[in-house]
Amino acid sequence: MPRIVQKYGGTSVGDVERIKKVAERIKATRDEGNEVVVVVSARSGVTNELIARAKAVCDQPSERELDMLLATGEQETIALTAMALHGIGVAAVSYTGAQAGILTDKAHTKAKITTINAQPIDRDLKAGKVVIVAGFQGINNDGQITTLGRGGSDLTAIALAAAVKADKCEIYTDVDGVYTADPRVVKTARKLEEISYDEMLELASSGSKVMQSRSVEFASKYGVVFEVRSSFNHNPGTIVKAEVAYMEKVVVRGVAVDKDQAKVIVSNILDKPGSAAKVFRALADANIIVDMIVQNVGRHGIANLTFTVPQTDSQKAVKALEPVLDEIGGGQVAVHEHIAKLSVVGVGMKTHSGVAATLFQCLAAAGINIDLITTSEIKISVVISLDRADEAARLVHAEFGLDNT
Amino acid sequence: MPRIVQKYGGTSVGDVERIKKVAERIKATRDEGNEVVVVVSARSGVTNELIARAKAVCDQPSERELDMLLATGEQETIALTAMALHGIGVAAVSYTGAQAGILTDKAHTKAKITTINAQPIDRDLKAGKVVIVAGFQGINNDGQITTLGRGGSDLTAIALAAAVKADKCEIYTDVDGVYTADPRVVKTARKLEEISYDEMLELASSGSKVMQSRSVEFASKYGVVFEVRSSFNHNPGTIVKAEVAYMEKVVVRGVAVDKDQAKVIVSNILDKPGSAAKVFRALADANIIVDMIVQNVGRHGIANLTFTVPQTDSQKAVKALEPVLDEIGGGQVAVHEHIAKLSVVGVGMKTHSGVAATLFQCLAAAGINIDLITTSEIKISVVISLDRADEAARLVHAEFGLDNT
Repeated sequence: MPRIVQKYGGTSVGDVERIKKVAERIKATRDEGNEVVVVVSARSGVTNELIARAKAVCDQPSERELDMLLATGEQETIALTAMALHGIGVAAVSYTGAQAGILTDKAHTKAKITTINAQPIDRDLKAGKVVIVAGFQGINNDGQITTLGRGGSDLTAIALAAAVKADKCEIYTDVDGVYTADPRVVKTARKLEEISYDEMLELASSGSKVMQSRSVEFASKYGVVFEVRSSFNHNPGTIVKAEVAYMEKVVVRGVAVDKDQAKVIVSNILDKPGSAAKVFRALADANIIVDMIVQNVGRHGIANLTFTVPQTDSQKAVKALEPVLDEIGGGQVAVHEHIAKLSVVGVGMKTHSGVAATLFQCLAAAGINIDLITTSEIKISVVISLDRADEAARLVHAEFGLDNT
Repeated sequence: MPRIVQKYGGTSVGDVERIKKVAERIKATRDEGNEVVVVVSARSGVTNELIARAKAVCDQPSERELDMLLATGEQETIALTAMALHGIGVAAVSYTGAQAGILTDKAHTKAKITTINAQPIDRDLKAGKVVIVAGFQGINNDGQITTLGRGGSDLTAIALAAAVKADKCEIYTDVDGVYTADPRVVKTARKLEEISYDEMLELASSGSKVMQSRSVEFASKYGVVFEVRSSFNHNPGTIVKAEVAYMEKVVVRGVAVDKDQAKVIVSNILDKPGSAAKVFRALADANIIVDMIVQNVGRHGIANLTFTVPQTDSQKAVKALEPVLDEIGGGQVAVHEHIAKLSVVGVGMKTHSGVAATLFQCLAAAGINIDLITTSEIKISVVISLDRADEAARLVHAEFGLDNT
């Protein structure tokens, strides 16, 4: 019998009415002759409520106790989902992360899955039951409850799909799938039928928020093919897998815009070995994630170093750099927050030249200035003015033939 | 180092402010040089909210899933309580029922504790940590989460006190202790310094709602001395133990009134063997708990059978009896809901005669009619009119010298 893992996010199980709708969908999947494993998140809002209560009793809640607290959110949903299935005559049983045999390391609030003992789930599936598993949580070797961090429920679903050797994994969310661009900005954006893990990863890191990178990486590593689709309609979604067939001569698969970055310029640095290292060591010590980096050397051995950081970290970055400025030649630091990063992504770029030229020309024709450029094998990113980011996305989307016509 | 188990009910941990107050009280207990184990309930209202959600997705939620759902209530409180202790600099760690080694049988929603493995708690206490345990819940041999039913958190505390060999067990609630009568009705009621298990049990079964009988029975069986006291002040409470010293010549320890009973009269029964058995078998089959029973035989071998049942079950009782009326001689059934049961309780009654006579005389002098009478070794109960129950409680309380003067 085919085996399907379905994951429903917090919005999909947000209240009792939605849980009942999800139960109907699960029943339909089972009635089509499948064995079904379901992974659910906490009802939307519950995790934030719990965190607010934690902060109200303690400024810095311990991570071990946070996991104990947050794990209740998913535990509530699995019980309610199982009950909703019973209510419509479907045999079902709920599993906490621990009961599902999801063993993790000891890193509370950001645990990594080490192994999954799928035997109990396998037994219940074979006994004809739908198995409902709490997403986002596991248990470590000491019997402590752990949580997997952001995007943890997706990871639970992908990992379970690998462990139970599922034929299919469906990630239900509040969007229809992966688009060639954000449909709220680019009206002509099209839903992709398929996308490769690599492209999905580059899109995620370029500000497309459908899924966290770690779940996609896990799926790629274990070869789990999954579909991103909406729980609010029955449209087919986007299938994410290793190799994608290119029926069309499409080089670029999607355009992503990230508006949450800030640009930091460290100028007048003495161009000597170790200057850049000192700058990025100071940022790393302050736990600031640096994205794009460009260095250019000017006259008289004086260099400028430019990079982007998350906007929320920009002032922290300035503070972290102050102590090292003297050591690197007394340079100055400036922050520009009014920027956006635009990226074009596509595995076809590996074998096609001219993508960069087309991109730059398209922006130049519209008088949009390019500030920084970085490239990878399957992605080109540019920093442009925030004001013109949406316009640029629409132009580039059309230029690469992605428009839905 | 002395070891104390403290239990805080749902009202005591009802919101984050109250949880912080409870944390202060725990800290004070620890600072006095004690090892402290704390048992907490779900925040007041949470369990009812969860049950409402369960009923909204399914008419008759499965007991296994109800336990999965309800266990989240206490799990939230243990995490928040541990965090509140961390916030004021106290080392603390939370334990679910399963982590606390509370093993139960498989009877979901009304499980019985079979064993407790106190080793992990013992280790953390010796390491200087306050241990916070989720009340009301355990785990069975199959790794399933179970709950202990009504009054379950008290039971957790008493059982843990026995398992960790505590020197003291404190049950914090929203009343100051056990009173000689309900202080809202009898203004002159006094708080008892001590009471015996047996008296406490008879008071509980007579409508005094401080604790469920099963927790008192468990404490009696394992010789756990406990104190019932308020979490909202620092008044000493009532100590419950096996033997109570009687400094005064007090025979009656308390007066309890139960207004939730109804009287059922089955009249014109043929007085032949098996009639009563048929009546009570029918009631037992309908899961109706019968309290007081009186049978009197009149002329011509015609008997009347009178008994009390919970008021909420009175119509169910009538319905359950209809099929057997013909078999027992075509009797009639009548229900009187306008009654109250008044009980006087005291171990001193074992060795004192005249208590019954004093009680009856006191009521007769006030013109209060007695409808039914039952007696045990340490209790006399009478059924009287509901209208006069409060007045009767005050008169009897004074008559037996219980008034606070």
